[in-house]
Amino acid sequence: MSSMQSAPINLVEILEHAAICHGDREIVSRLAEDGTIHRTTYGESYVRVRKLASALEKMGIHKGDRVATLAWNGFRHLECWFGISGMGAICHTLNPRLFAEQLIYIINHAEDRVIMTDVTFVPLLEKLQEHLPTVEHYIIMTDRAHMPDCGLHGAICYEELLESGDEAYVWPSFPEETPSSLCYTSGTTGNPKGVLYTHRSNILHAACGNNADGFGLSADTAILVIVPMFHANAWGLTFAAPMVGTKLIMPGAAMDGASIHELIRTEGVTTSAAVPTVWNGLLDYLDKSGQDLAEIENLVIGGSAVPRYMIEVLDKKYGVEVNHAWGMTEMSPLGTVNRNMPFMKGLKEKDYEAWLDIKCKQGRPPFGVKMKIVDDEEKELPRDGTTFGRLLVRGPWIVESYYKQTAKAVDADDWFDTGDVATIDEHGFLQITDRAKDVIKSGGEWISSVDMENIIMGHDAVALAAVIGLHHPKWDERPLLVVQLKEGCEASREELLSYLEGKVAKWWIPDDVQFVDDVPLTATGKISKLNLREQFADYQFPDQ
Amino acid sequence: MSSMQSAPINLVEILEHAAICHGDREIVSRLAEDGTIHRTTYGESYVRVRKLASALEKMGIHKGDRVATLAWNGFRHLECWFGISGMGAICHTLNPRLFAEQLIYIINHAEDRVIMTDVTFVPLLEKLQEHLPTVEHYIIMTDRAHMPDCGLHGAICYEELLESGDEAYVWPSFPEETPSSLCYTSGTTGNPKGVLYTHRSNILHAACGNNADGFGLSADTAILVIVPMFHANAWGLTFAAPMVGTKLIMPGAAMDGASIHELIRTEGVTTSAAVPTVWNGLLDYLDKSGQDLAEIENLVIGGSAVPRYMIEVLDKKYGVEVNHAWGMTEMSPLGTVNRNMPFMKGLKEKDYEAWLDIKCKQGRPPFGVKMKIVDDEEKELPRDGTTFGRLLVRGPWIVESYYKQTAKAVDADDWFDTGDVATIDEHGFLQITDRAKDVIKSGGEWISSVDMENIIMGHDAVALAAVIGLHHPKWDERPLLVVQLKEGCEASREELLSYLEGKVAKWWIPDDVQFVDDVPLTATGKISKLNLREQFADYQFPDQ
Repeated sequence: MSSMQSAPINLVEILEHAAICHGDREIVSRLAEDGTIHRTTYGESYVRVRKLASALEKMGIHKGDRVATLAWNGFRHLECWFGISGMGAICHTLNPRLFAEQLIYIINHAEDRVIMTDVTFVPLLEKLQEHLPTVEHYIIMTDRAHMPDCGLHGAICYEELLESGDEAYVWPSFPEETPSSLCYTSGTTGNPKGVLYTHRSNILHAACGNNADGFGLSADTAILVIVPMFHANAWGLTFAAPMVGTKLIMPGAAMDGASIHELIRTEGVTTSAAVPTVWNGLLDYLDKSGQDLAEIENLVIGGSAVPRYMIEVLDKKYGVEVNHAWGMTEMSPLGTVNRNMPFMKGLKEKDYEAWLDIKCKQGRPPFGVKMKIVDDEEKELPRDGTTFGRLLVRGPWIVESYYKQTAKAVDADDWFDTGDVATIDEHGFLQITDRAKDVIKSGGEWISSVDMENIIMGHDAVALAAVIGLHHPKWDERPLLVVQLKEGCEASREELLSYLEGKVAKWWIPDDVQFVDDVPLTATGKISKLNLREQFADYQFPDQ
Repeated sequence: MSSMQSAPINLVEILEHAAICHGDREIVSRLAEDGTIHRTTYGESYVRVRKLASALEKMGIHKGDRVATLAWNGFRHLECWFGISGMGAICHTLNPRLFAEQLIYIINHAEDRVIMTDVTFVPLLEKLQEHLPTVEHYIIMTDRAHMPDCGLHGAICYEELLESGDEAYVWPSFPEETPSSLCYTSGTTGNPKGVLYTHRSNILHAACGNNADGFGLSADTAILVIVPMFHANAWGLTFAAPMVGTKLIMPGAAMDGASIHELIRTEGVTTSAAVPTVWNGLLDYLDKSGQDLAEIENLVIGGSAVPRYMIEVLDKKYGVEVNHAWGMTEMSPLGTVNRNMPFMKGLKEKDYEAWLDIKCKQGRPPFGVKMKIVDDEEKELPRDGTTFGRLLVRGPWIVESYYKQTAKAVDADDWFDTGDVATIDEHGFLQITDRAKDVIKSGGEWISSVDMENIIMGHDAVALAAVIGLHHPKWDERPLLVVQLKEGCEASREELLSYLEGKVAKWWIPDDVQFVDDVPLTATGKISKLNLREQFADYQFPDQ
């Protein structure tokens, strides 16, 4: 017999807590079907979630079954998250931005029995459905009035389904290690891999990640969750918010500056979370419209490194603090958040650039995440802010093995290799310096491509720049700088190389420069180093 | 195979996290042995904790063994907490304020093998030791210079012990349900009962209880932990603080206003936690010395209800917000914290008394604690802020069974009866109205003795007042008001009863008043209703 109560915690208890203790707190959604604003509360939502779970049970969904969602952020999507996992099934979030073949692969690999979809994605699913033999039902997340005349086999209206559910539904009890949700990562090579979150991992992620050194949400916060629920758990914010009664505002499909700004202005938004490109769009809008950021106090920005100018503009022009964050699907996803620390007190006023240097780092881990950087021999490297190595992470909300894979994704001590190269400074601040596959290994030492790219991009004549490592008979690899000049601009090889001098270690400076008309990009607009390395496979350095 | 990492979390990982991520953050202690200030850091502490665990292992301490502490709040006591539980043994905190017989009972019941004690308590232990056959070692928490010439068998100097330890000690792994710590409750009747906390219960308590709706500590906080580590887990603050890198300030044995204020002034204290009597002492000191509360922003006050005037004085005179809290040893101990909610916005400025009404409530539970009020038939009562019933609680950091007891302490659904009677309002705010054994049951309805006592204590002539329930042939029980008048003051039966009119329900008004010279008090200065009920056992109401 246990001395303390041993009942496992079901993820849905987060919403139950919100319903009991923050029953009137609002969930505001811009509807995907018609762009109108919908308002509900945690109290009302919890009733509907019980009806949903009951209806799914009547439909024959069992514990462990995969029920997928293909939807924007909105109140019905939130209900699906809690209803599906609360009944013991697995909520599988599908990313509508994937290619059709990837979606087909993922849905078949997960053997989804049901797909709950926004009206928006019905045409997409109509095209895919003949390739999805495991899917028995398509539930359209809308009411009867908005039901499309659709060609999906067994299409069901979400609101009709709910009517068939029983709000007296009682949640089952099962071990906390029971899977609750599933999200696939889309690597640049190979098939997507599924990360299977558990009730335990999501609860610890929400509880620890919401301490003051993490998201720090409270009942006084109103958060606009722009980061999609189909992408890396919406950074866990849709669990963390109801846990403390934070008002939830969800933008649906409208991610443009004007739509986002309307929600910020009308809903008393105090914080928000999204990738840098969304903030770029919003900053553009603010610039043109002369608007401000109303009651917003701070922003969580992650997904890729936050540009220095963005932190500066948000601070100086709008009085908004950026909480730079880093994570990955395999980490539920929270790895680090950059929050103010005692040693930073007064720094902003005294030395703004030094303060910016710190804010450009990805931050520090909350309790639960352990991290270290290692060299090629797995030896731990010093936390000095300059030495960089492969970043390994460990903790209760980090993947152990991918879905349906027998091999572990971690080493014998549970360390997961993030595929990133990073520095960690004496205060524990992480800074991602490169993807491991892009780092240049020269004479046994590592050279960061990203550092040099960031510097050279500051040259007036440069449109795009990439530094790649190519084979060198003596040094193993040496860096080559590939440059696409701005139209009508000129710059010589010598000029560009000397631009780097004094800014990076002497031995980092590339051995040569190659000018191209177009630096190749990936589908998501990032520089494709894979393509560049292929393009320059036969290249020989001048000294060879 | 689990999909997410399944390694159990050891409680000592909280300190490990602090050492890695907040290594320079200070732990400041006023030493029990000589009142001097000692400074260390989480980084240094974690090295010493590994040496302590190693030394205890060499001493023959095994997993599950009870190692007791008898100590004030200080850095060595903190090391004991983490070292003992981290190695898998059980840290048993002894309350030095207990009677000798209670201490003997508790130590023998727990079968403590070791007692780690402050120098202060050596004389006490010298007297007790012949009654403590299980205790093999007494470890005196001091250095060689301060070692007393003591008559304790097998006395060991703490710092010498540490020297024998190995800082390369590797923590063992065990299930999270492994007991980590033990604390006895001292009821007014019967033997003390042990509450055996686990690694899991303490970790969840610290993580969930430190969200913004709980303690909300951060790396920017400096907390003076006055609530003793020997009492109800120091409210979990000594776990919550290192979890987020909060500076820890510990007052040792000096609880007087001047000593407490010195720490507040010199250590940049931003928050603190203690029972109301401590703040009474401090407010007195501030009044007489004309000092203020320096950088303190808010205070956590609990242990007993915070008087209304205290909240008002701290707010109006010192600009300090009171976070009224409630809990009990059986709850690790956090049950509720009174934090500002959106519905309270602007209330303080608009209607100060209404705001005070809310601040006088004990607050709302963090995620993890469920609570309900029930009547005698176990039927749940409405959350309307006026109906009161027995308060039941449930959750992962609430007791299931007392130490070495086979019977469960909870009902079939894990509800633990707190022994308190309370109201819960529509916003989820709890207010304790009575101890269950003191509530008056009249005609099937309940009457709160505390409510009426609080009102009558406002009468100028009243020194002390108690309302007790006595047998009544028709109503089962009726209230009797027992009053001790201030010296030289007079008040008639009719005057006192009419003073209550309009302030409580008509049928609550006591049937009679009895004047006494001295209202009997308990050893801790509370009104002894047990004694009063005995004293008036033969009393008959006027209408009988």
